[in-house]
Amino acid sequence: MTKTLISNGTVVSATGRVQADVLVDGETIAAVLRPGSALLGFDLERNVDRVIDASGKYVIPGGVDAHTHMQMPFGGTEASDTFETGTRAAAWGGTTSIIDFVVQYPEQDVLGQYQLWHEKAAGNCAVDYGFHQILSDVQDSSLKAMDELIAEGVTSFKLFMAYKGVFLSDDGQILRAFQKGASNGAMMMMHAENGAMIDVLVQQAVEAGNTSPYYHGLTRPWQAEEEATHRAIMIADLTGAPLYVVHVSAKQAVEQIATARDRGLNVFGETCPQYLYLSLEEQLGAPGFEGAKWVCSTPLRSRAEGHQQHMWQSLRTNDIQMVSTDHCPFCMKDQKDMGIGDFSKIPNGIGSVEHRMDLMYQGVVSGQISLERWVEITSTTPARMFGLYGRKGVIQPGADADVVVYDPNGHTSIGLDKTHHMNMDYSAWEGFEIDGHVDTVISRGRVVVDGGEFLGRAGHGQYLKRGLSQYLS
Amino acid sequence: MTKTLISNGTVVSATGRVQADVLVDGETIAAVLRPGSALLGFDLERNVDRVIDASGKYVIPGGVDAHTHMQMPFGGTEASDTFETGTRAAAWGGTTSIIDFVVQYPEQDVLGQYQLWHEKAAGNCAVDYGFHQILSDVQDSSLKAMDELIAEGVTSFKLFMAYKGVFLSDDGQILRAFQKGASNGAMMMMHAENGAMIDVLVQQAVEAGNTSPYYHGLTRPWQAEEEATHRAIMIADLTGAPLYVVHVSAKQAVEQIATARDRGLNVFGETCPQYLYLSLEEQLGAPGFEGAKWVCSTPLRSRAEGHQQHMWQSLRTNDIQMVSTDHCPFCMKDQKDMGIGDFSKIPNGIGSVEHRMDLMYQGVVSGQISLERWVEITSTTPARMFGLYGRKGVIQPGADADVVVYDPNGHTSIGLDKTHHMNMDYSAWEGFEIDGHVDTVISRGRVVVDGGEFLGRAGHGQYLKRGLSQYLS
Amino acid sequence: MTKTLISNGTVVSATGRVQADVLVDGETIAAVLRPGSALLGFDLERNVDRVIDASGKYVIPGGVDAHTHMQMPFGGTEASDTFETGTRAAAWGGTTSIIDFVVQYPEQDVLGQYQLWHEKAAGNCAVDYGFHQILSDVQDSSLKAMDELIAEGVTSFKLFMAYKGVFLSDDGQILRAFQKGASNGAMMMMHAENGAMIDVLVQQAVEAGNTSPYYHGLTRPWQAEEEATHRAIMIADLTGAPLYVVHVSAKQAVEQIATARDRGLNVFGETCPQYLYLSLEEQLGAPGFEGAKWVCSTPLRSRAEGHQQHMWQSLRTNDIQMVSTDHCPFCMKDQKDMGIGDFSKIPNGIGSVEHRMDLMYQGVVSGQISLERWVEITSTTPARMFGLYGRKGVIQPGADADVVVYDPNGHTSIGLDKTHHMNMDYSAWEGFEIDGHVDTVISRGRVVVDGGEFLGRAGHGQYLKRGLSQYLS
Amino acid sequence: MTKTLISNGTVVSATGRVQADVLVDGETIAAVLRPGSALLGFDLERNVDRVIDASGKYVIPGGVDAHTHMQMPFGGTEASDTFETGTRAAAWGGTTSIIDFVVQYPEQDVLGQYQLWHEKAAGNCAVDYGFHQILSDVQDSSLKAMDELIAEGVTSFKLFMAYKGVFLSDDGQILRAFQKGASNGAMMMMHAENGAMIDVLVQQAVEAGNTSPYYHGLTRPWQAEEEATHRAIMIADLTGAPLYVVHVSAKQAVEQIATARDRGLNVFGETCPQYLYLSLEEQLGAPGFEGAKWVCSTPLRSRAEGHQQHMWQSLRTNDIQMVSTDHCPFCMKDQKDMGIGDFSKIPNGIGSVEHRMDLMYQGVVSGQISLERWVEITSTTPARMFGLYGRKGVIQPGADADVVVYDPNGHTSIGLDKTHHMNMDYSAWEGFEIDGHVDTVISRGRVVVDGGEFLGRAGHGQYLKRGLSQYLS
Repeated sequence: MTKTLISNGTVVSATGRVQADVLVDGETIAAVLRPGSALLGFDLERNVDRVIDASGKYVIPGGVDAHTHMQMPFGGTEASDTFETGTRAAAWGGTTSIIDFVVQYPEQDVLGQYQLWHEKAAGNCAVDYGFHQILSDVQDSSLKAMDELIAEGVTSFKLFMAYKGVFLSDDGQILRAFQKGASNGAMMMMHAENGAMIDVLVQQAVEAGNTSPYYHGLTRPWQAEEEATHRAIMIADLTGAPLYVVHVSAKQAVEQIATARDRGLNVFGETCPQYLYLSLEEQLGAPGFEGAKWVCSTPLRSRAEGHQQHMWQSLRTNDIQMVSTDHCPFCMKDQKDMGIGDFSKIPNGIGSVEHRMDLMYQGVVSGQISLERWVEITSTTPARMFGLYGRKGVIQPGADADVVVYDPNGHTSIGLDKTHHMNMDYSAWEGFEIDGHVDTVISRGRVVVDGGEFLGRAGHGQYLKRGLSQYLS
Repeated sequence: MTKTLISNGTVVSATGRVQADVLVDGETIAAVLRPGSALLGFDLERNVDRVIDASGKYVIPGGVDAHTHMQMPFGGTEASDTFETGTRAAAWGGTTSIIDFVVQYPEQDVLGQYQLWHEKAAGNCAVDYGFHQILSDVQDSSLKAMDELIAEGVTSFKLFMAYKGVFLSDDGQILRAFQKGASNGAMMMMHAENGAMIDVLVQQAVEAGNTSPYYHGLTRPWQAEEEATHRAIMIADLTGAPLYVVHVSAKQAVEQIATARDRGLNVFGETCPQYLYLSLEEQLGAPGFEGAKWVCSTPLRSRAEGHQQHMWQSLRTNDIQMVSTDHCPFCMKDQKDMGIGDFSKIPNGIGSVEHRMDLMYQGVVSGQISLERWVEITSTTPARMFGLYGRKGVIQPGADADVVVYDPNGHTSIGLDKTHHMNMDYSAWEGFEIDGHVDTVISRGRVVVDGGEFLGRAGHGQYLKRGLSQYLS
Repeated sequence: MTKTLISNGTVVSATGRVQADVLVDGETIAAVLRPGSALLGFDLERNVDRVIDASGKYVIPGGVDAHTHMQMPFGGTEASDTFETGTRAAAWGGTTSIIDFVVQYPEQDVLGQYQLWHEKAAGNCAVDYGFHQILSDVQDSSLKAMDELIAEGVTSFKLFMAYKGVFLSDDGQILRAFQKGASNGAMMMMHAENGAMIDVLVQQAVEAGNTSPYYHGLTRPWQAEEEATHRAIMIADLTGAPLYVVHVSAKQAVEQIATARDRGLNVFGETCPQYLYLSLEEQLGAPGFEGAKWVCSTPLRSRAEGHQQHMWQSLRTNDIQMVSTDHCPFCMKDQKDMGIGDFSKIPNGIGSVEHRMDLMYQGVVSGQISLERWVEITSTTPARMFGLYGRKGVIQPGADADVVVYDPNGHTSIGLDKTHHMNMDYSAWEGFEIDGHVDTVISRGRVVVDGGEFLGRAGHGQYLKRGLSQYLS
Repeated sequence: MTKTLISNGTVVSATGRVQADVLVDGETIAAVLRPGSALLGFDLERNVDRVIDASGKYVIPGGVDAHTHMQMPFGGTEASDTFETGTRAAAWGGTTSIIDFVVQYPEQDVLGQYQLWHEKAAGNCAVDYGFHQILSDVQDSSLKAMDELIAEGVTSFKLFMAYKGVFLSDDGQILRAFQKGASNGAMMMMHAENGAMIDVLVQQAVEAGNTSPYYHGLTRPWQAEEEATHRAIMIADLTGAPLYVVHVSAKQAVEQIATARDRGLNVFGETCPQYLYLSLEEQLGAPGFEGAKWVCSTPLRSRAEGHQQHMWQSLRTNDIQMVSTDHCPFCMKDQKDMGIGDFSKIPNGIGSVEHRMDLMYQGVVSGQISLERWVEITSTTPARMFGLYGRKGVIQPGADADVVVYDPNGHTSIGLDKTHHMNMDYSAWEGFEIDGHVDTVISRGRVVVDGGEFLGRAGHGQYLKRGLSQYLS
């Protein structure tokens, strides 16, 4: 087994930073040590295979992106990143674990779909991967499958309050699933938008000839998100299930979550880089069909209303606990362009799996969050939230050696002709400049990115059998 | 320098737990390692002086008690624990750092008092100690002294909204001190009770012949605490200073803090074991003069009103960030008994420095908090809050080797004839039974408690020159 | 036309009380005058047909009960009061106007139903009556009918968030109806309970053999009401429609309404006497099948949780604006007993139309509300809320002469063998004692109750063509 | 006694409007009648001395301005309106009652001051007047005087949390006064600004050379008002006293009041026209010393922060109950100009007693409030709040004949050379145009303004012996 010493770096955790060496032995971290190669007189450098000099750099646990949709079938097409291209892009960006969503569409067999996703991913991933399960058809057999999936390491289940006929569960179904979650310890995840309201607004907009991408935002108003968030919280309150609200974008939804947490409920919220940086006015409102690049749901919110700034604050106050990407890429050609003339036919989703660590680090540079909080929201909390902590999300002995050497003096320019390894024909982040750089990425002890080269391989990544959430209070 | 290996324990941090060995080299931690004595073939056990077997036990960072008053002159007497007896008791209970309060009474010179406290502590302490500074006379010279004290490692300053003529600052003085804190980075600490209201209520009670200890509670109603807490928050809001409210006991005060935090302010709250376990009805209302044992300010609150249960919840939700003791012991004889016939003459304070780690661990046993949260609220957050993190509050290489081996299968009976090393003639916690035990306590690499014996010495403890708070968002 | 002078009473309005004479000329009030029969030398007493001496009594506007269901078909049976028996009982109790609900069940024609209700009521009513319209099938034709009904004096429309397949509208339908209300000025009324959640809980309870009336309460938890209330508010916020939440029973629902009002929304709430006086524990939890008497929806709430006391407070603070009865009587025999062995088959509803004025006056006696507030919540606000003010709800010249002489020194015992004129074989208020008495009731100038005798007749009551709400801010 | 018939107008009350005639007999209203001169055949017009044709006009109860300071000694000068000039100006503007403040400065005898104010006012007033009592020296004798003053019809007492050495009471004094108010039923009024904070900010501003009137606003930030408002509420909560916060200007203070009311407390707030229309940026920030015209406390607030719009909303939602002027006029010459070079020496106050009814009517025109709400906040509620209802604040038999005929088709231009009868050398409302006009003003049956002429006289106005508040819930 390869032995590697990452020396002289600043190891950053969720609570602080320390000058330390990290010794990797095979796939796991063997020790964290005071810098200097001698331990009780034993010379480490001479006894390892490789020394990575991290002087002046941050040594952080590899990123955990808890919300991706690789090659997901949706809206008559399929998300453009395969597990291979998507996890490779993740590796490039310092993310060494993803949790992807197995999809059950109505009338499909939950466990069958779970197996199908294993087949899609197995042998193709550059970094480790776990699964959440989407339930679109809550009935007795689905509820039974929840128990079985927990035994398989799928300990979180996502329901939708929107997309009627495709994903939507009614409140009775949600109630039953949450009752199951309360009893078996599963984390209940929710796409919280009131689909019935949105469907009416979309139909009215299209009928009125308001068909440009901008109307995607106007027809999914904050009230629809706030309402659904509150409703999910009440069902969580009634059943006792823990609740994790995905892709929170409206400040009013954040306030619902904050209120629930002040009442002592196990209610959590995730946001995404797009809700921190992008807006209804600037991106969705771009001329012509350009806005289609940023059609995702929940939608980008109005900057004039202050959602973005409030979301940064929420990350600081821990009213929002973590940042995922909701990576769901579609190309403009042959995919997004299905919605020319009717925004409601634009496949929903944007791709960011490659850039999350950088984009959030820029929040450190700009003073929005602390260095420690950066590690916490991108790695430590995602791991704790979804039962991976100890293996992932922390640099400590026994943990998987998923380590990123991040250079605060480096620089990263994002763009289709620059850094871009996702299978998309555009970048949602074109032109973003980051005052930092992912230098080296180690996944389970293996250097997969270094010196601007991808050194990993499809199939290195392994399935992550997850435990129950370690974040509940 | 002594080399020690703490082997096979479960190392607990604020975010998780891991099976790991901890190597202590001299006064600091040299490494945290996968269990098993061999590192790359190098046999650790054979190269250390001592191996402490922590199998089946928790290995945690030594406790940090950020609120003590050793030998404090108050109310015509002096707190009964000296730095020697108090820090020895702390060590017995697994607390390896205290932060004590230097007192400036009106017209006293701040820096002179600071020197005086150094004299009291130097050479007497069993564990490390730092200082906060109390300002009772905010004026130009005091404000100037704040800058100088920060350079000395005193980075937090406590003001009082009660005790007129003794400690009280008016709102203009508070404003000026907070302006200074906003500019030099100091943490502003506040005793938040409306003294003017309380003074009237106390006088009325005494005049009405309501002189028993129970009236200490009734004359310091929650409104007085909620009001002052809100007022301090507004001054923090206006000035931008970070605010730390000491000994929060009323749930309504917690709500003020929670609201401020939801608004993004750097406002923090500390509670104490007495506000989690004890009550107005049971303790202050004890027959005769017995209640005097628990006369402290803020007072014990009504259990019927639900303050205690709400406080536990606040610890879970992080609306309250940490637990200190406000250790301020007085004996019943010759001290507390000064208030027979007039509760207002009872010296305010109870002693808990020895029992905080145990009492809070009992919250883990009862399911009120998680194991990780126990470490966070008793050690990690206190260290971060007050600029000690890295040296204290965490087990990582380079940190001071302040380590406690805690046995979850042990048992601790609290009582005057059992565990009791504080210089008090009664225990405020008489009869409490703890399902856990402090087995071994290491302070800066030296075993100071082990096998039921105190192995430390006065003078081992050193002054902690603290940095600015590491907890601000 | 008959001329009547009501002399020497205390005329009470929503804002105050005054000693005054009230002159009735035909069907309307001609003047309100200083007491004493001479006006500028003109002797009133000698020029009227009748003098009613109201010395020592309150002279108040006749009650307006804005929520009744006479002979409503529901659950396979029909509410047991006809328009004749129900309005006669109303008159007995000092209520001189009711607003009843026209029911559209799915696929029924709205206007056809409206005509049908006219046929039911015409010629049968003892006091005046207006109509709200229930919409159970929101579609283009129903929305068009809203405009037509407003022209007919039906200016308020009720939707349901519960009772799937019978009344329930989905959120898209609610949205469309609210959009219409925002444009044509209609008041949108809402039965705010989450039916989908309740349906699951009911089914689970019945399957578990929990079939007694008590489970009616347990399967309609406050979360279901709070949630639906919040959801309706968000749709009102989005559309700009005014919202009136019927039969509010949970304190958490009140809090949602209060929050909406503090934000400046036109959101209102009605409660009913049962939610002020009765409880889950005492009534629904009565032995055997007895609890069926009080099966209504929303259900009676837990007294231990404090809903009743909070509801009184809400009436004081105007967070709840008015009190209706939701009069929907069913007999125990052949009606309520349909649910023996399955609480879900018990027809929902209790009867109170006769007792509302008395029951609320008892709140004056007990100090819960002021005398003026009594008039406001039972008469003035209902009239303003639903476009009747000026004719109803106030004693002023030009108003319909609907007047009640109420004796604060009288007494009323409620019970099947005492005062009871509703067509029910039990009284939901059996044993209630009221420290006051309805002495004389005048409806449009005609004395319909006096001296313990009913002097009115079926057919006296006329249809009230209502205007838009006069209560909006 | 003169008999007058005000015929054919629209009589407006707090709850609605009606076409009605008002018969005035001597000083009081004898009857309110259906329009048309014949009552039961008796011809009113032929039996009265005078008929005022109010066709097409509003007939409203005369305005009640509950907050004026006529000829108040303050800041080394005296408010420029005497009781004679001030009440005459009030009459011009449709205000027929004022409640002025008797001032007790420290060490002054409360009852002596009360007598002194009677001497100032007696024989000089054009309209009726009552007194509140300011207490600046709360001690045993002052508390005793409270009881005596209530017997004299002074049932409300104002304390200050600002102006140290002049008006300020400390929290202990406030507590004692509130305890007295809770026991004798007095309304406790509060100037809620944290004076200690403000004093520091003012001193710092002046020392920094920031001496223009604009800094008056900056040195009295919303935090100082919000804080004091909250503090007063907590003392009200503790004691049970009703609380009336004067001249609320900050939206955050409104929120504190709204929260208190939602909790069921008897807490009320008054605002003034200046806080609805004027702002920090536009008025206080006027060039040079011009801003001095609008130096009053609480100060004008920032329009960018949205206080004004929130205040209008609060009037709609009844979170703020009424509008007074805080009329405290000073001339620019020899008075305001005392503060050239030091804003802190500018006498605080602006004059509006003449324009309140017009300014608030403009809120009806602009759609901010309803016509009924206009009457409620300017007349009905002030009368109820301060124990005048029945005599004032309502048009009903037995009430004082204080009536205003207001023409919605008239127009009023405000300005020094236009309408201006206050004794000031400038108008704070210069250039305001009002779409309405005070046509006729009747005070206790006597026409005092009509046809653009003042027909009243000094000495007509009588002292109003007030009862306890009629507004408590």
